Amino acid sequence: MDNNSTSINNRKPERSNNFNENDQNIDHSKEIVEKEDSVEKIFESKEVPPWQKQLTFRAFFVSFVLSILFTFIVMKLNLTTGIIPSLNVSAGLLGFFFLKVWTKFLEKSGFLRQPFTRQENTVIQTCVVASSGIAFSGGFGSYLFGMSETIAKTSTEANDSQNIKNPALTWMIGFLFVVSFLGLFSVVPLRKIMIIDFKLTYPSGTATAHLINSFHTPQGAKLAKKQVRALGKFFSFSFLWGFFQWFFTAGDGCGFVEFPTFGLKAYKNKFYFDFSATYVGVGMICPYLINVSLLVGAILSWGIMWPLIENRKGDWYAATLGPSSLHGIQGYRVFIAIAMILGDGLYNFIKVLSRTLLGLYQQIRDKNLGLALPVGSDSSPSNTPSVSYDDERRTRLFLKDKIPTWVAISGYMLLATISAAALPHIFHPLKWYYIIVMYIFAPTLAFCNAYGCGLTDWNLTSTYGKLGIFMIGAWAGASHGGVLAGLAACGVMMNIVSTASDLTQDFKTGYMTLASPRSMFVSQVIGTAIGCVVAPCVFWIFFKAFPDLGTLGSQYPAPYATVYRGIAILGVEGFSSLPKNCLTLCCVFFIAAIVINALRDIVGPKWARFIPIPMAMAIPFYLGPYFTIDMCLGSLILFIWENVDKAKADAFGPAVASGLICGDGIWTLPSSILALAGIKPPICMKFLSRKTNARVDTFLGKN
Amino acid sequence: MDNNSTSINNRKPERSNNFNENDQNIDHSKEIVEKEDSVEKIFESKEVPPWQKQLTFRAFFVSFVLSILFTFIVMKLNLTTGIIPSLNVSAGLLGFFFLKVWTKFLEKSGFLRQPFTRQENTVIQTCVVASSGIAFSGGFGSYLFGMSETIAKTSTEANDSQNIKNPALTWMIGFLFVVSFLGLFSVVPLRKIMIIDFKLTYPSGTATAHLINSFHTPQGAKLAKKQVRALGKFFSFSFLWGFFQWFFTAGDGCGFVEFPTFGLKAYKNKFYFDFSATYVGVGMICPYLINVSLLVGAILSWGIMWPLIENRKGDWYAATLGPSSLHGIQGYRVFIAIAMILGDGLYNFIKVLSRTLLGLYQQIRDKNLGLALPVGSDSSPSNTPSVSYDDERRTRLFLKDKIPTWVAISGYMLLATISAAALPHIFHPLKWYYIIVMYIFAPTLAFCNAYGCGLTDWNLTSTYGKLGIFMIGAWAGASHGGVLAGLAACGVMMNIVSTASDLTQDFKTGYMTLASPRSMFVSQVIGTAIGCVVAPCVFWIFFKAFPDLGTLGSQYPAPYATVYRGIAILGVEGFSSLPKNCLTLCCVFFIAAIVINALRDIVGPKWARFIPIPMAMAIPFYLGPYFTIDMCLGSLILFIWENVDKAKADAFGPAVASGLICGDGIWTLPSSILALAGIKPPICMKFLSRKTNARVDTFLGKN
Repeated sequence: MDNNSTSINNRKPERSNNFNENDQNIDHSKEIVEKEDSVEKIFESKEVPPWQKQLTFRAFFVSFVLSILFTFIVMKLNLTTGIIPSLNVSAGLLGFFFLKVWTKFLEKSGFLRQPFTRQENTVIQTCVVASSGIAFSGGFGSYLFGMSETIAKTSTEANDSQNIKNPALTWMIGFLFVVSFLGLFSVVPLRKIMIIDFKLTYPSGTATAHLINSFHTPQGAKLAKKQVRALGKFFSFSFLWGFFQWFFTAGDGCGFVEFPTFGLKAYKNKFYFDFSATYVGVGMICPYLINVSLLVGAILSWGIMWPLIENRKGDWYAATLGPSSLHGIQGYRVFIAIAMILGDGLYNFIKVLSRTLLGLYQQIRDKNLGLALPVGSDSSPSNTPSVSYDDERRTRLFLKDKIPTWVAISGYMLLATISAAALPHIFHPLKWYYIIVMYIFAPTLAFCNAYGCGLTDWNLTSTYGKLGIFMIGAWAGASHGGVLAGLAACGVMMNIVSTASDLTQDFKTGYMTLASPRSMFVSQVIGTAIGCVVAPCVFWIFFKAFPDLGTLGSQYPAPYATVYRGIAILGVEGFSSLPKNCLTLCCVFFIAAIVINALRDIVGPKWARFIPIPMAMAIPFYLGPYFTIDMCLGSLILFIWENVDKAKADAFGPAVASGLICGDGIWTLPSSILALAGIKPPICMKFLSRKTNARVDTFLGKN
Repeated sequence: MDNNSTSINNRKPERSNNFNENDQNIDHSKEIVEKEDSVEKIFESKEVPPWQKQLTFRAFFVSFVLSILFTFIVMKLNLTTGIIPSLNVSAGLLGFFFLKVWTKFLEKSGFLRQPFTRQENTVIQTCVVASSGIAFSGGFGSYLFGMSETIAKTSTEANDSQNIKNPALTWMIGFLFVVSFLGLFSVVPLRKIMIIDFKLTYPSGTATAHLINSFHTPQGAKLAKKQVRALGKFFSFSFLWGFFQWFFTAGDGCGFVEFPTFGLKAYKNKFYFDFSATYVGVGMICPYLINVSLLVGAILSWGIMWPLIENRKGDWYAATLGPSSLHGIQGYRVFIAIAMILGDGLYNFIKVLSRTLLGLYQQIRDKNLGLALPVGSDSSPSNTPSVSYDDERRTRLFLKDKIPTWVAISGYMLLATISAAALPHIFHPLKWYYIIVMYIFAPTLAFCNAYGCGLTDWNLTSTYGKLGIFMIGAWAGASHGGVLAGLAACGVMMNIVSTASDLTQDFKTGYMTLASPRSMFVSQVIGTAIGCVVAPCVFWIFFKAFPDLGTLGSQYPAPYATVYRGIAILGVEGFSSLPKNCLTLCCVFFIAAIVINALRDIVGPKWARFIPIPMAMAIPFYLGPYFTIDMCLGSLILFIWENVDKAKADAFGPAVASGLICGDGIWTLPSSILALAGIKPPICMKFLSRKTNARVDTFLGKN
């Protein structure tokens, strides 16, 4: 039964705490309540095609194109700030748009053999989400790139050769192939329990299903058409703006990204607006609280703390250290951010885990009592066990196409064996028995994550990843390449738990759109396979096109690569690597993160919306406030828009934001091609202080 | 009778040829037709105060404040491009706004003794137009500044000391005082003939009256309030944008005005967008045809002709000449522009003069026949001689307050004597008998201009000015300071004919708003007196604050100063000063201007709107296309706005444009104060080619 009013606009609707712990997946906040009695009554006349027919060539072709598009976007976000908003609306809109155009075209020319169904739409959505998910869980902006020499060089700890593994196309693709499919097999047998028996909410999956269902009603299709037009308009604008900006970036320190909007002094402390259409769009998608939290964090760190600590230069840390050394000011930035992220993560891990266990306990108790009470996120008693028409029809179709349990189990065993055999060849410090141990616990963790996600919409992927870093890193030890082993273990963990929860979400979406579980599964497998090839290739393009990838202050600083490596070093080497007083500060912020989170839960959602989220506050600690300014601008635009015309802002805000993000994101494709081809922009827009300018003018013989 | 539908929004509604010959006053194009049966019936209940009560202190206080504001704006426009749009809407809106706030405030506190009437509003409008008119007819951007050494140095001809007179506050104020009031007295005796007997249309005066009348109806006041809000919003935006831009202009070649939007090569040929809110606003006010004409002229000159001529460097002119020498490429730019301006001017002078004489002839003939047929611009036979209620009431009030003819004649005689005695002391080459001769002919010319303006809405002020340059310049001769004498004579002429036509327009406005002719006259006198003091002071601020005033390529190139001096040199020295082939090109463009104008008249208004106006084409010849880009952007914005929401664009377009112009214009006040105080902006936004940037980076020790 689907009596919860959920967002039709977005896969992950807002919750009081919807900022996923270190997942960097920020969810959309706007909820459009869709009141409906029975969705399936509307679609009653439409035939549901068999599962083989749901998997059309055209669907996978469109998925492939969109996968490349979204991988570029996610990769860009990974490598700039690590903040990745939910791109489901844009994926949904674009998928619908492309297939609609395709089928319209065929229809007109009389070649259309099969109409465009919502099941097919679900297949596309699933495939795109699976493949672009790899761009995130593949760790190109975090653990995987954290293994590289570029990141290792920022610290004097553990930068020996056995703790370094530079990116290469071959081993990255291999690594992803051997770890990404395990998650799929680990939860397949449990799908009936979670979707039918437990009736878990899966707010994001439900929202996606609503979106897809709405597209296929006549009215929804009309709105979708308008939304696509808005998306297209801002896509073009954003793309052209990216193109225009390019012309002015002839050298380092050139271009709009260096614009000292608030003056040179503020610019030095990274307070400036960098004219990034992407982050303005991200700001429009993220809830106000996230943006405010980011700003509070930015002001606290770059406005107050770092300048104060820098005054202690020579006392707290050696004045001779470079600005990117983890023993200098950079150390404070990275480790305090890590402390806050870990504090927030720990609190939420315990919270979600206890709720998961409590939920499970209640389920089992109710089952024993002969009841099948659904457990909503609030276990609301209003969920009566009466079976509606929708539920009945959905359940029937969901149970029709079975995936045999033996396939799942033997698939998992086979993959685990291959993986255990192959991974030590890729990462020498990662012994085969570490992997076996992980794979024994992994299904439990995958289930926990999928269940927790269904209950609370929280995806704790990166927390499990960090768990892997600490456990395996400590086991291996510093002298045996513990840092590299830790990071690799993090990758193994993250891929399993992330795909597990994604697939369960997709099952929920499929359940609500009458798509077969089999087609969902196949689509996920194909999507994952696409992702395993596309994501490393896209990363490779970035890696080759921008040689300063991962360098602080460059276009692509890849902040989380440093953070993840920092965590691994902490796990392996302990606190010895921290500069003076840093441990104290870390403890303060670790505890503060827990206290703030607890406070948010105690005061309730009414007041919680005025208390910043520690996780969000921590992000600008390392990177600086510039992207926060962009995001707050996006928030401001949306806020004004909502005040002027709420209905329009709600309907078109996400489309406009998606347009801004996608246009700028896709511009990175031609931009990296230009960089690879060695074509350099013709003009440098430079910002000089008056004094320097006078010197330059004299030098150029102007005065 | 007022049965012509005229623009309520603007003093000068669009005509097929509304671009005043070299007047640089471009009129507004949007017409809002106001259909009414009897305006005076609406206002019947409202008492008309006696003329002394129409002249309140508060009205003149507001006028004084607005005079300073508009003088700044006009001065800025004078000194940047010389294109001055009609600022009547903004003057009307702001005047209404200030006095409304004033009276509302007094009303609330119970101190209001006299309500705000439309007569008072007319007094403000008249006073502000008179005073800011001086900023234009005072020639600070044309003849007066053309006398200075800065401009004289650009040519090797006539740059001896007797042809130079550098600006000084004292003589400028003195000069304006002795010449500006003559025009007022010259037309006062003829007001009844032109307004009552001839019933001349005066489209601009009528439009202003409509605007003021509309403000004082309840519905009009509501719209005005909204328009003021739009104006205020864009005023703030434009002001803040100007302020923001300032921070980035630490040196020469810095800031947004140097932004090579279309690349460095286009920038070299002055094709770039200079981010000026003023000219975007001006573009919104000017008719599309003007903007297109400017663009055509810009492409023809800077896109095609100048590059071709520059290829002949060393052949057509010496390669050693600087870029601002009138013997080099600059000569072609200036003299070809002058040729086109003169051709256009001559054509229109003859056209308007012949229509004036024809109109006068008809009037006299009809009078002799005992009829009082009104002569509209088209002498439409539909104007029946029946006297409406409006006409009857207006005529009665217009004739009530008389200004005795002896006052006018003796005032003129007295002023002429003072002027003839004083002017030779200011300009030594300008002998007293030149002045007497001019003053004998002046009333005739003033009448011609006022009559022609009433008939066609064409103000030929600067054509009469150029007539003065040629006549007196040739009479004095090169060896006796003919250039200076010519420019001074131009000033004398322009001030007389311009104030004469302005006052007659105001009489028409007063007639239609029941304001007394006496209060109109007093308001004009006070406005002119304010202008005679304020305008030179404002110019003085610019002159002191920006030492490179009048230099090509600077922030304030004052293009018409060079053009007017060029005309004077031509008049005195003949064609000997022109570079090779320049005379031929000048002849071609002179004839082309006449032919194009004739063509525009022959094909009729339907096709004329596709034929560019030669006068407008000539302006970018000298200055370059950059402001044309701004103006076309303004046009484009308005065009899109009109297509999206025509009613809103018509109602708020002029207010938005005024806001943009006024905000940026008033920013020049703090900007010049900052310059005078020696406070320099902190940052330089510089645009370098990749090659130069690499050199600079090496120099700064970055790489």
